[in-house]
Amino acid sequence: MPEHSAIALVGLDWGTTSLRAHALSPAGDVIDRRERPWGIRQLPAGGFAGAVTAIAGDWLSGPGSPPLIACGMVGSRDGWREVPYLDCPADVAALARGLVAIDTPSGPLYLVPGLRLTGDRPDVMRGEETQLAGGLALAAAPADTLCILPGTHAKWVTVEGGRVTRFTTHLTGELFALLRDHSLLGVPARGVPVRDQPADAVTASCPAAAGDAFDRGLAAARASGAAGLSGRLFSVRSLYLTGSLTAADTLEYLSGLLVGEEIRSGLADRGDVPATAFLVGDRALCGRYARGLAAFGIGDVALLGDTAPAGLWRIARAAGLVACGERPRSTGAPP
Amino acid sequence: MPEHSAIALVGLDWGTTSLRAHALSPAGDVIDRRERPWGIRQLPAGGFAGAVTAIAGDWLSGPGSPPLIACGMVGSRDGWREVPYLDCPADVAALARGLVAIDTPSGPLYLVPGLRLTGDRPDVMRGEETQLAGGLALAAAPADTLCILPGTHAKWVTVEGGRVTRFTTHLTGELFALLRDHSLLGVPARGVPVRDQPADAVTASCPAAAGDAFDRGLAAARASGAAGLSGRLFSVRSLYLTGSLTAADTLEYLSGLLVGEEIRSGLADRGDVPATAFLVGDRALCGRYARGLAAFGIGDVALLGDTAPAGLWRIARAAGLVACGERPRSTGAPP
Repeated sequence: MPEHSAIALVGLDWGTTSLRAHALSPAGDVIDRRERPWGIRQLPAGGFAGAVTAIAGDWLSGPGSPPLIACGMVGSRDGWREVPYLDCPADVAALARGLVAIDTPSGPLYLVPGLRLTGDRPDVMRGEETQLAGGLALAAAPADTLCILPGTHAKWVTVEGGRVTRFTTHLTGELFALLRDHSLLGVPARGVPVRDQPADAVTASCPAAAGDAFDRGLAAARASGAAGLSGRLFSVRSLYLTGSLTAADTLEYLSGLLVGEEIRSGLADRGDVPATAFLVGDRALCGRYARGLAAFGIGDVALLGDTAPAGLWRIARAAGLVACGERPRSTGAPP
Repeated sequence: MPEHSAIALVGLDWGTTSLRAHALSPAGDVIDRRERPWGIRQLPAGGFAGAVTAIAGDWLSGPGSPPLIACGMVGSRDGWREVPYLDCPADVAALARGLVAIDTPSGPLYLVPGLRLTGDRPDVMRGEETQLAGGLALAAAPADTLCILPGTHAKWVTVEGGRVTRFTTHLTGELFALLRDHSLLGVPARGVPVRDQPADAVTASCPAAAGDAFDRGLAAARASGAAGLSGRLFSVRSLYLTGSLTAADTLEYLSGLLVGEEIRSGLADRGDVPATAFLVGDRALCGRYARGLAAFGIGDVALLGDTAPAGLWRIARAAGLVACGERPRSTGAPP
C-alpha cells in the first residue's frame, strides 16, 4: 500500500456494474488501483458510504487525508446524489465548476456532473465526460477532434476548441450482448464453448484479437451503404445456414457488422471522414474499432486506454482541489 | 363442423410457435379454422403425428378424405422432415413441383419448400413463400410488385414477372421484443401496465392503433437519412430522461423508430420508391407499416391479412392435388 503522504487525490470511477478506486500521486500518476463489483445497483453492506470505506478507507483515514472525487453513475438519479447535467458546449473548467460536494463518513466527496445535449437530438453522458477530459490531456489532442468511446453505450464526441460541442450515443455494445444472448442469431454460438469475458462489451465471447469473420462483418456493413444494417443483420443467420460461416465465427461476424455499422453511421452523421480519431476505453475493444476505422479510411487513430483517472485528476486540479497540495475546507461546491 | 364432403383441402400453417389448420371448400374458401400453440418446438403428446390427428383428425378421417398440405417451419431442419429450399427466381409452379410428401397416420402430407437466395447476400424464407402465393392471388397483383411481410423476421420481397426474384429479411420484430424486454430502453415501459399481446411482433405491448409517439419515431427514422438507426436508437432513452417522452410512450416511439428504419433501409436498398406496395400478415401490424410507408411517400398500399390458406390452396391446385376434385394416390413427389 502506498504511504498516505504520497497520495494527493483519491479518484473513483463508479458505474452501474463496478467501482474502481485510484490513488494518485502529487504528479497525477496512478500509484495504486482497486476494483470491486460494487456498481450502484449492487452495493455492499453499508451502501454507498460502506463501499467507499471498504475500497479506500485506508487511503482516506487520518489527518491530512487526500480529497475524494468520483465520476459516473454514482451522480445519476439512481446513484448517491443526482448531479444535474451540464449543457454543451462544455470544457474541463465547466466540469470543475459543476462539481457537487456531499458529506460522507470519509469526508466530502466531489461528484463530477454529466453532459447533456438539448434540442431535437437530445443525448446524455455520465462518466464519459471524465474519460474525455483525461483522454485529451493524455493525447495532447488538437483542439478539434473526433473522440470515440466504445462500450455498452458507445459515444461519438466532437471536440471543437477544446470543448465538447456535440455527441451521439450508439447502443452497439448492448445490442451485441442482446443478440448474442437472446436472439435467433446467437443460437449457433450458444452451442459453442466460449471464453469467459465481460457480458457488456462488443468483444464479449469473442477472442480479443479480431479475426477474418470480423473483417467480413466490417466489409458487409461498409457495402450496405445508405441502406445500413437493417437488411444485413439476418445475414448472420443466412450465412450460417448456407454453410458460409461456422457456428464459432457467427459472433465475430456479428461484432464486425455492428462495429462497422456504428462507424458507417457515425461518419454519415458527421458528413465527413476526419483524418484522425481518438479511441478511449478497453484496449481490446478499441483495437476492434481501430480496425473498423481503418476499413473506412481512417488510419491515424490513437488508442488511449482507461483515461478516467487522468480525467479525475485534471478536473480536481481545475477545481483547485489539488492545486496547492491542500484539500479545501468547504464541503460546498468548490470555487 | 363442416361436412366431410364439403372439404376439398386441409391446409396447415405450421410455424415455430403455433399450428393453424384450415378446412377449404371446393371453391378454395376457408370454411373452418383452428389454432393450437403447437409450434414445432412445443408439440403435444404424439409429436407431429399426434398434433395433426388432434387438430384435424375429424376432417381427415374416413374414405374420400381431403388431401393434406403444410407450409412453414414444419419443413425445416428442426421440423418433421427437412424440405430443401428452392432457388430464386421461383413461382407457384416451382413451389408445386418442389412439394415433398411424407407418409403420416393421417395419410400423405405434402410439405411446401422454402425459398433461398444464394450469392453474396444469401437469405432464406420458409412459410412466407406460401403467404406470398396467396397474397398475389388475392390481390390480383401486377406481375411486378413489392410485397412486405411484417413480423418477427420481416421480409421485403421483389416480385417480377410473377416470380420471386429477390428478398431481404429485416429482424425488426425480434429486435423490438429484445429491446423492450431486455435493454435499458425498455426499462421505463416495463414499469407501466401493458396489454397482453403477442411477444414476437412489433406491435407487442403497444396499442393496436399507432399513436403520436409512433409517428415521432417514424419521423426520427426518416430524418436520420443515410446515417440510419445506429445513432438514433438511444433517443428512446434521452427523450425519456429529458421529459420529452412518457414512460408509456417509449415503446410506441421505439416501434416507430424500428418500422421507420426498416422502410428507410428497404427503400435505400431498392434504390427507388415504388408507387404501390402489398402488405401481408397481421392486420394491426400491417396498419403500422402502411402508416410508415405513407410517411415515406408510398400511399397506395394494399393490406392483405392472413394469406397462408389461399397460398396453400393455390399451390395444391398447381400440384394437381385438388385439380380434379380427387386426391392423388402417390405418396411421392406430386407431378
